[in-house]
Amino acid sequence: MLKRVFAADLGTYIDTDVLVKGWARFVRNTKSTTFIVLQDCSGTVQLVGPADLPVHVKREDALEIVGRVRKDQRAARGFEVDIIDIRVVGHSAESLPFLSRSDLTDIGLETVLDYRPLALRTDRGGTIFRVEAALVEGFRSALRRRRFTEIFSSKIVSEGTEGGANLFPIRYFQRVAYLAQSPQFYKEHGVVGLERVFETGHVYRAEPHATSRHLTEYYSLDFEMGFINGPEDIIAVEREILTEMFGNVRQEFGEQLGQFDAYLPSMLNVPIWTFDECLDRLKRADAPCDLVDDLTPEAERQLCTMAEKEAGVSAIFVVGFPLSARPFYTFPRSDGRTAAGFDLLFRGVEITTGGQRLHSRRDLEHALCQRGVDPHAFEPHLRMFDFGMPPHGGLAIGAERITTQVLGLRNVREATLYPRDVQRMSP
Amino acid sequence: MLKRVFAADLGTYIDTDVLVKGWARFVRNTKSTTFIVLQDCSGTVQLVGPADLPVHVKREDALEIVGRVRKDQRAARGFEVDIIDIRVVGHSAESLPFLSRSDLTDIGLETVLDYRPLALRTDRGGTIFRVEAALVEGFRSALRRRRFTEIFSSKIVSEGTEGGANLFPIRYFQRVAYLAQSPQFYKEHGVVGLERVFETGHVYRAEPHATSRHLTEYYSLDFEMGFINGPEDIIAVEREILTEMFGNVRQEFGEQLGQFDAYLPSMLNVPIWTFDECLDRLKRADAPCDLVDDLTPEAERQLCTMAEKEAGVSAIFVVGFPLSARPFYTFPRSDGRTAAGFDLLFRGVEITTGGQRLHSRRDLEHALCQRGVDPHAFEPHLRMFDFGMPPHGGLAIGAERITTQVLGLRNVREATLYPRDVQRMSP
Repeated sequence: MLKRVFAADLGTYIDTDVLVKGWARFVRNTKSTTFIVLQDCSGTVQLVGPADLPVHVKREDALEIVGRVRKDQRAARGFEVDIIDIRVVGHSAESLPFLSRSDLTDIGLETVLDYRPLALRTDRGGTIFRVEAALVEGFRSALRRRRFTEIFSSKIVSEGTEGGANLFPIRYFQRVAYLAQSPQFYKEHGVVGLERVFETGHVYRAEPHATSRHLTEYYSLDFEMGFINGPEDIIAVEREILTEMFGNVRQEFGEQLGQFDAYLPSMLNVPIWTFDECLDRLKRADAPCDLVDDLTPEAERQLCTMAEKEAGVSAIFVVGFPLSARPFYTFPRSDGRTAAGFDLLFRGVEITTGGQRLHSRRDLEHALCQRGVDPHAFEPHLRMFDFGMPPHGGLAIGAERITTQVLGLRNVREATLYPRDVQRMSP
Repeated sequence: MLKRVFAADLGTYIDTDVLVKGWARFVRNTKSTTFIVLQDCSGTVQLVGPADLPVHVKREDALEIVGRVRKDQRAARGFEVDIIDIRVVGHSAESLPFLSRSDLTDIGLETVLDYRPLALRTDRGGTIFRVEAALVEGFRSALRRRRFTEIFSSKIVSEGTEGGANLFPIRYFQRVAYLAQSPQFYKEHGVVGLERVFETGHVYRAEPHATSRHLTEYYSLDFEMGFINGPEDIIAVEREILTEMFGNVRQEFGEQLGQFDAYLPSMLNVPIWTFDECLDRLKRADAPCDLVDDLTPEAERQLCTMAEKEAGVSAIFVVGFPLSARPFYTFPRSDGRTAAGFDLLFRGVEITTGGQRLHSRRDLEHALCQRGVDPHAFEPHLRMFDFGMPPHGGLAIGAERITTQVLGLRNVREATLYPRDVQRMSP
């Protein structure tokens, strides 16, 4: 039996019989000839057969074809495949909401989400998720090169890490557990044990927002490292790894990026502005800034525009948020009032929160008491600080958000295979 | 300021001042000298200082040390570091349940789990999780080389994929959702869109088992591919990728594997036996086999012993399980009675379930009806079969189980950072 050859590899099989498999992206019949553009996981190829094929073929059918590769200067890739035998191994429906060659920007988001697999077969839909996978893998490999170890921590937890009421309860046998808001505690345990750890996995926020940037379940790219001097060490790592991740995507997807408003800059010179400096800048620009402890979406957009003008990159590390607005485990700056943490705004949207964490058990107990929480509830976590916990910190990047911002999409759901929000829990 | 140098890299810094950071794995004072073995994420190094160090240092303290690397033939690595300055940046408790140089096999499993980060700092504990990370990454990269795309599918679902009552309910705003038992449906959607997909992520089974091989939350290595001829195509891919994954681990962890009863064979010649043939063999060996639709743990052990004798590898692909014992989406073999699926038994334990799936909507609707389920409940899933679904199949490997079997551990919890079972949901 013939071995299956991928569309992308056919150029080395001129004048050879091959077996190709994929979907009919395009079918055209003339009086004498049938043209089929076949799409598989590697790309597309044009096939040519007689007008009277042994089977009826329509667009989006799954096909297996035996053919012979023939040089043809007129063909886009310099060759075509002459059909010798053809089978339909998966029939498509007569009526479909859109097709693999449709322009996804013309299709409503709800339709795209209800027919996600078909959207994946379009150029735009397929590329979005291939880019997302490349960003995630770029994150992992950049950290692996820096001696980080990947961990897989539990998403079923007995208490929240971030405070607040936005937890999804699970009926765990006879008890109540929650879906993890972040792997924060487990990353810190990882630091005590392995010094440098990362995790890529889903986290959960029971927030009833219906905005273009919020999901109740998102894929979080997390790392945490020990023996830091301050949050600037975390910022330095993020500058480097984002630059590497963006470089990978530019290299791997060069041509396909043309269909997007893509932005993959070097991140090495992203400026660092304090929260107070951001407020000043917004005031001077007459921008609305009745802000106390966080930036509004509009403020984030304006600040990125300012950074692009001043520093040539539409991104800012914002440091020095009010301590009270950050989780209890946040390390304070020397003023005692602001946090040794940061957000990264990228192209108008926050895509990272990070910073230094408290590393002394006493400080953590004190911080919990100050927020009216009994430290005993956190004892299984606090115990891990008895093993010589060094100064440490880390960050989390939302995979769907960074993909959305990098490709210039309008809604984070475009970069989420099956988004979950207050409305949607299926398919 | 001096740049931090990792222990593993110190050999290239002879006669140079360096900054090293890590934990005191060992501290010994003589009349004139203090010896410290420092451990960081890269390895260990011996440091030498005067008897009267400026600070008190005890085992497991987190240290930052300025020192000078000095050649010394007597030292294990051919050099030592003379301490110039030393700071304790994280104090360990006076009393700890065990130490980083403890033999983890002497410590009870419950203690290990309650003090997981400290266990990670031991040679055995650290290596188990580094090997697990390497197996997961080996799975991903082997598939990436074969044109598979990584997907990130939702773990919040509106119905189970595997049937049965072992679902964890979530309170999802005003509705009930469930934790996903597997990414099965989403992988199949991925096949329609991208032809070849994989996912690595947590899955959930509300099974109140308290065995050494069951968890309620485990990390599942899943792939699914289109245009297959039968389950043997899936088996062929698994043989290859496991062989690559094992080869990576042998190469990366050569020395450290000595402390385990490790088993990392080539999987290319693992035999394929039918379920009926397995029952015959068990009968002939006078083994207990009152089996109807599955193998018992004892039968799995005996079959692997037989395979080792006959084929030289302690592993078997078992094919042809009764169809009724497999999920509704299972493709039947030509006899109509048995499943076109397989289990992989490895070293006495099942580590994979895989096979071919039904690819026609009509067959799926029929299979659901036969099990007394109204197909309408699955409509958002069944709709995806209208886009030209080719014959397809895939498999799932439990990451904790394969790590356990590869390293010869006694309990899957040894390879689970924070195991979840009917008893345990913290830390």
